[in-house]
Amino acid sequence: MKLKSAVISIGNELLIGRTLNSNLAYLGAGMAELGIPVAYSLTIQDDYEAIQKAVHECWQNYDVVISTGGLGPTQDDITKAAIAEYFGKDMHFCENIWQHIQDRFAHRNVTMPLSNRSQAMVPEGFEALKNDRGTAPGLHYNTDGKHIFVLQGVPLEMRYMFENYIKPILKQAYHEAKGLVVRNLHTYGIAESALAELLDPKELPEGVSLAWLPQTGRVDLRLYGEDAAAIEIAEQYLHRQTGDYVWGYEDTVPAEYLLQLLKKKEYSLAVAESCTGGLVQRFITDIPGSSDVFLGGVVSYANRIKAELLKVDESILRSFGAVSEECARAMAQGIQRLLRADVVVAVTGIAGPDGGSTDKPVGTVYYCWRIQDKEYALHKVFNGDRESIRYKAAEAAILELANTLRNE
Amino acid sequence: MKLKSAVISIGNELLIGRTLNSNLAYLGAGMAELGIPVAYSLTIQDDYEAIQKAVHECWQNYDVVISTGGLGPTQDDITKAAIAEYFGKDMHFCENIWQHIQDRFAHRNVTMPLSNRSQAMVPEGFEALKNDRGTAPGLHYNTDGKHIFVLQGVPLEMRYMFENYIKPILKQAYHEAKGLVVRNLHTYGIAESALAELLDPKELPEGVSLAWLPQTGRVDLRLYGEDAAAIEIAEQYLHRQTGDYVWGYEDTVPAEYLLQLLKKKEYSLAVAESCTGGLVQRFITDIPGSSDVFLGGVVSYANRIKAELLKVDESILRSFGAVSEECARAMAQGIQRLLRADVVVAVTGIAGPDGGSTDKPVGTVYYCWRIQDKEYALHKVFNGDRESIRYKAAEAAILELANTLRNE
Repeated sequence: MKLKSAVISIGNELLIGRTLNSNLAYLGAGMAELGIPVAYSLTIQDDYEAIQKAVHECWQNYDVVISTGGLGPTQDDITKAAIAEYFGKDMHFCENIWQHIQDRFAHRNVTMPLSNRSQAMVPEGFEALKNDRGTAPGLHYNTDGKHIFVLQGVPLEMRYMFENYIKPILKQAYHEAKGLVVRNLHTYGIAESALAELLDPKELPEGVSLAWLPQTGRVDLRLYGEDAAAIEIAEQYLHRQTGDYVWGYEDTVPAEYLLQLLKKKEYSLAVAESCTGGLVQRFITDIPGSSDVFLGGVVSYANRIKAELLKVDESILRSFGAVSEECARAMAQGIQRLLRADVVVAVTGIAGPDGGSTDKPVGTVYYCWRIQDKEYALHKVFNGDRESIRYKAAEAAILELANTLRNE
Repeated sequence: MKLKSAVISIGNELLIGRTLNSNLAYLGAGMAELGIPVAYSLTIQDDYEAIQKAVHECWQNYDVVISTGGLGPTQDDITKAAIAEYFGKDMHFCENIWQHIQDRFAHRNVTMPLSNRSQAMVPEGFEALKNDRGTAPGLHYNTDGKHIFVLQGVPLEMRYMFENYIKPILKQAYHEAKGLVVRNLHTYGIAESALAELLDPKELPEGVSLAWLPQTGRVDLRLYGEDAAAIEIAEQYLHRQTGDYVWGYEDTVPAEYLLQLLKKKEYSLAVAESCTGGLVQRFITDIPGSSDVFLGGVVSYANRIKAELLKVDESILRSFGAVSEECARAMAQGIQRLLRADVVVAVTGIAGPDGGSTDKPVGTVYYCWRIQDKEYALHKVFNGDRESIRYKAAEAAILELANTLRNE
């Protein structure tokens, strides 16, 4: 038995770019963990017919259907009515839920609009799922061995419903189902196509799937299946074939990996950037708790700032230019002196679109990193336009430094 | 004529919670701006039949269909074959695209795996769209007044294709050929609900539609219709009602607006950031040519750096804390002295998730900007999680400074 689920996301805001659909990612991870992976998902407008059509399609083809959104008190919330009609159910007023809604308003000392009364309407035969993080209840209906859940669109409420109702209900209903095992490996320094030549899917144990997930400038690999031992064997195979390129597992991002290494070694970090213009530091400070090791840094965009603040020698700028290994080294030495950090990294290059030459085309980037008094330099040429060169150059600064720290 | 589009997101990683579908949000916003809003979206597995079924459904019902994902060189990339078969087309080898792929590998001095050859296969009658951010080309097909675009899943590549191909192709096909007029106005400093109270859709000329496009921390307005004169009248009405809040038009972003103002006044710019950790400078240096006015800046994440490098008085840090108007003023003065810039802006705040208090909750941000010797300070509290607080705080730094410069 291979169980599969579908997710229906209801809401114009998802379609006009106002909101990222974090609910789908959350449900996708949660349902995969339950062994009932999401195989199909629809995003539709808040529209009666669109909702019925989507429910019909998903209910025909999947074991579990979850909808999110369309449960607010405003007049465009027609989800419940559309679903009730699809299943041929009348709506009835639920006294319990009504009491819960009234209590919540009383607790907040807010006058309740009458429109909230519609939130206490429940289709016959459906179970109302009390929402301790909001007013609108969720709904659950179970027939012919299938389940449909109607959830809120607000992520905090939706997550509460998933953890407190969907998980226990589905665990109980499908107790024979095995959990899906997922293992993610992050690689760096090898192209997707080169990875593909290292890895032969036929070498994987039966029942294990391998997916390539290309990121900007690097590739993630994902193994999944239902047999933990087989996944383990597959992971060992991946390591044998690609070990040197794997830097992390599961949810981690490059800056988190670097910060963990620095914390373990009790090193402080400072950064000097030119072409990346703050992006390296932004990646680092994206991570909560980065202030434990990250002191700060300088964006020395103009040559005058490189010279005055980082003390890059005028003769280096004159003889080699700001985009040179010599300048990167001087920037690294300068920022280390200035901020007295154990570890520093400096980046200087040409992000484009202008400024390239035959010798140093757009995409040329020079790095220098220092771990106490040991110094490392590197030169890379990135493809792409300004945005992607800057992105890859900043991630490479973090991953190259991290790889040196790991092997230190 | 009411044009509508559909988006097909291909990739298991979106369904198992591995990746947030930022492509859909991007396309949703972009297609809304073009006046061809996304009305429907499917997320499907990397599966031949699922792709054909999705294309069939969307192609029947929508004017423009965009797919993302499933274009890598690995064997699970079956998108092109499925779409070619759906439209009854054979695949042929495209010499131009092959040359482009080879050039990209040569440029990076990397040996090209043979599997990349499949990326140069194009369905007959389809236009291959050269991808300057990667190897896999996008595809475009146009028949019966409809368009389908087959794009990459990597967000940077997908965005490049959207900006460089889809936008001009659709503008030509619908705006120029069929006379759709679209006008975008960007506002800042007013909430969506307050804007709604200023604007009465009944005051707009017949045939002109107005859409609200909320961005992170600000709102865009879009007028569209087929009558340029009516759009002009509608725009005048919008200006009368909301003029003070409008800062830009069409494709511009806040940093571009700020840089234009600085260039006109021949002012140089420097930045001191704490909680935004490089993001303000990253937004500024995202813009090609920013080096004309942007000198550089400091990320003074640790208090020691604020004190040592920016000369924030220890007594300020002790009495008021690093998150205070006093500290923001001292940071601004410090960076102006240090880098000798005409204009500076300083940002210090609490991005969370930790570090908030009753007095200064998470989201509290203090700003100071200086235009030569005139000093301005501001205090804001932003909603949301770490990522959205940092994003809004950095954009606000840029827009508040720009608004002062505009009125100077």
